[in-house]
Amino acid sequence: MSVEQVEESDQFAPRFDSNGLIPCITLDSNTRQVLMFAMMNREALQLTIETGLAHYWSRSRGKLWKKGETSGMVQQVKRMLIDDDQDCVVIEVGLTPPVGGGQEASCHVGYRSCFYREVPIGRKSEKPIQLTFIETGKAFDPVAVYGDTPNPTRL
Amino acid sequence: MSVEQVEESDQFAPRFDSNGLIPCITLDSNTRQVLMFAMMNREALQLTIETGLAHYWSRSRGKLWKKGETSGMVQQVKRMLIDDDQDCVVIEVGLTPPVGGGQEASCHVGYRSCFYREVPIGRKSEKPIQLTFIETGKAFDPVAVYGDTPNPTRL
Repeated sequence: MSVEQVEESDQFAPRFDSNGLIPCITLDSNTRQVLMFAMMNREALQLTIETGLAHYWSRSRGKLWKKGETSGMVQQVKRMLIDDDQDCVVIEVGLTPPVGGGQEASCHVGYRSCFYREVPIGRKSEKPIQLTFIETGKAFDPVAVYGDTPNPTRL
Repeated sequence: MSVEQVEESDQFAPRFDSNGLIPCITLDSNTRQVLMFAMMNREALQLTIETGLAHYWSRSRGKLWKKGETSGMVQQVKRMLIDDDQDCVVIEVGLTPPVGGGQEASCHVGYRSCFYREVPIGRKSEKPIQLTFIETGKAFDPVAVYGDTPNPTRL
């Protein structure tokens, strides 16, 4: 395929990186917040398209990850978009409350969105930069929802 | 730093991958469209924070990239967010029209957003999937704006 075909045509030709992954940006279809950023492998992308439920590839756990399989916070895909060179997708999703109680959300830390902190703009970054929490509070209690499941974050 | 510090504290501690890069999702602050997905290195992130103008690391050109340096389509950062494990940022930006004429936009192909095509959801993907163009037309003529500059897309 040529660059022109990939960029200008209506042929779906997703491009996976050297690890077989394509990045996915997940947007809340109601609030238009960015909820999360994760990777999909070919199977996760195909399952997302076929079922209309978000599937990812968990790099920390090394396995296919149907969003909500532990928490109940499944994501219903309202729309999927792909970018110019077809190496990134956006999904616009509806949210589901966790089965362990709480409000509809996406982030394992307990917030609606993973992007719950703001970085101040327009200042010299010599001093440590202090983040501001932009969500009013957690949507659910992560212990009640995830129990003993290990935190997926790897530093 | 512990996982708890990275996720729960107000300390800005961005985490770069093995190539020294952090992914950035760029959102239109007015329309809440996802405009583009690109990478930043430490310098691009710092310049974005200090100047309030979006800077990226161009992987195809192997250089720091002030958005709009060729086209005039600079991006003014209204807000920056960082995710739970601090390995991805979102910037919400205002757009500028290209100096070569046309409407305000972001994508080098000529569309407002790089995500100008929709992938149909809820069907078996055995047959080739056909994309739908969701923008009514190009915001500018890429030849008038970029001239002989090589297309940054690498297949």
